[in-house]
Amino acid sequence: MSADARIAELGIELPPPFPPAGIYVNAVRTGNLLVLGGHIPFTGDSVVLGKLGDDLDVDAGRDAARLAALSALATLREELGTLDRVVRIVSLRGVVNATPDFMGHTQVIDGASEVFEQVFGERHARLAVGVSSLPANLALEIELIVEVEDSGG
Amino acid sequence: MSADARIAELGIELPPPFPPAGIYVNAVRTGNLLVLGGHIPFTGDSVVLGKLGDDLDVDAGRDAARLAALSALATLREELGTLDRVVRIVSLRGVVNATPDFMGHTQVIDGASEVFEQVFGERHARLAVGVSSLPANLALEIELIVEVEDSGG
Amino acid sequence: MSADARIAELGIELPPPFPPAGIYVNAVRTGNLLVLGGHIPFTGDSVVLGKLGDDLDVDAGRDAARLAALSALATLREELGTLDRVVRIVSLRGVVNATPDFMGHTQVIDGASEVFEQVFGERHARLAVGVSSLPANLALEIELIVEVEDSGG
Repeated sequence: MSADARIAELGIELPPPFPPAGIYVNAVRTGNLLVLGGHIPFTGDSVVLGKLGDDLDVDAGRDAARLAALSALATLREELGTLDRVVRIVSLRGVVNATPDFMGHTQVIDGASEVFEQVFGERHARLAVGVSSLPANLALEIELIVEVEDSGG
Repeated sequence: MSADARIAELGIELPPPFPPAGIYVNAVRTGNLLVLGGHIPFTGDSVVLGKLGDDLDVDAGRDAARLAALSALATLREELGTLDRVVRIVSLRGVVNATPDFMGHTQVIDGASEVFEQVFGERHARLAVGVSSLPANLALEIELIVEVEDSGG
Repeated sequence: MSADARIAELGIELPPPFPPAGIYVNAVRTGNLLVLGGHIPFTGDSVVLGKLGDDLDVDAGRDAARLAALSALATLREELGTLDRVVRIVSLRGVVNATPDFMGHTQVIDGASEVFEQVFGERHARLAVGVSSLPANLALEIELIVEVEDSGG
């Protein structure tokens, strides 16, 4: 089944691509790689703010990570026209706005990884860390390297 | 206009490449990608130290990010001979030495992104985060993936 | 001398590959790049926990970084069959679980970089940062981009 078909089957609705807040773009292609910058938990109306281990618990973080994954899928669809031109999610870096004693990063970022596995059928390489702060007090961000089909393919 | 010509037109003077402080090099090429490790705010004489949200404010951080971008340009010129062999800055990761309540990472890292946009005429993908500490209490570091021309080109 | 021969000459014994703790895999190949996700200090029996600048000092951190490098070598050997198919370590990102006043990241991550230089004979690009927390209170993680030989090579 194609990735676009899986999205429909899963009943996933993608938000609009999030507009960059600074001097950058959401994605740049080089060869067969599409590099996505930081994608944030965005519902289409609002973003998820707060620190894991303080304002937010693991379940709330996991939901936020899922939203960040949907935002990344929205960027992929905008860049490629269709998710069916994604060959594979190569790697994901998840940065969690977290207190020094937070330990649940793996469970939080699994909320994003699960979406990509459901849609593309494979797992990616990953790094998940807790950072001391994020722009505007965002709860988390994910960054992706994605292999895509040849332009002429 | 070529990137080298833009540098001259903008009146930008590049510092010497910063000598690595440990067991690493400033850049490694693989295929058409040049991967630059962490580049720091270096004036040629001194480096910018301190934590954003405590020792340094957003304006000081933005100036530091600009210096880190100039240091990265110095590495690019050393590696390639000329900035005109840069096809595009693909992605930038900015790590800001920041307190847990700092929120101005976007404005800080824009100080680096602005330089690259001025010199190369395009924007890159980006992740900006606040980290709890950096080597020697550096204010920030930027890391780049850059697409470059074929060796024989 | 081949990388596998160097490993033997150095008397290095690799641990088994560490089993992923979440929805990810240890490495994904795209073209001639093998991207390794976060690799942790793993002895084969236990992992190194704690915060640099508090529970652990620079020497303990350096030992932990060396263990993380061995774990990454174990993944490389599993993925490629032999370390001799590694062309080069392109870049390493080291994330150190560190207090806000820790400054010894360079010395800590050198513990990993030294292993790769001994085995492959060259240095890589690098970013070393202090993060506020890591999954399960791990002491550090390293992430790698590695250039590998053609599949048919």
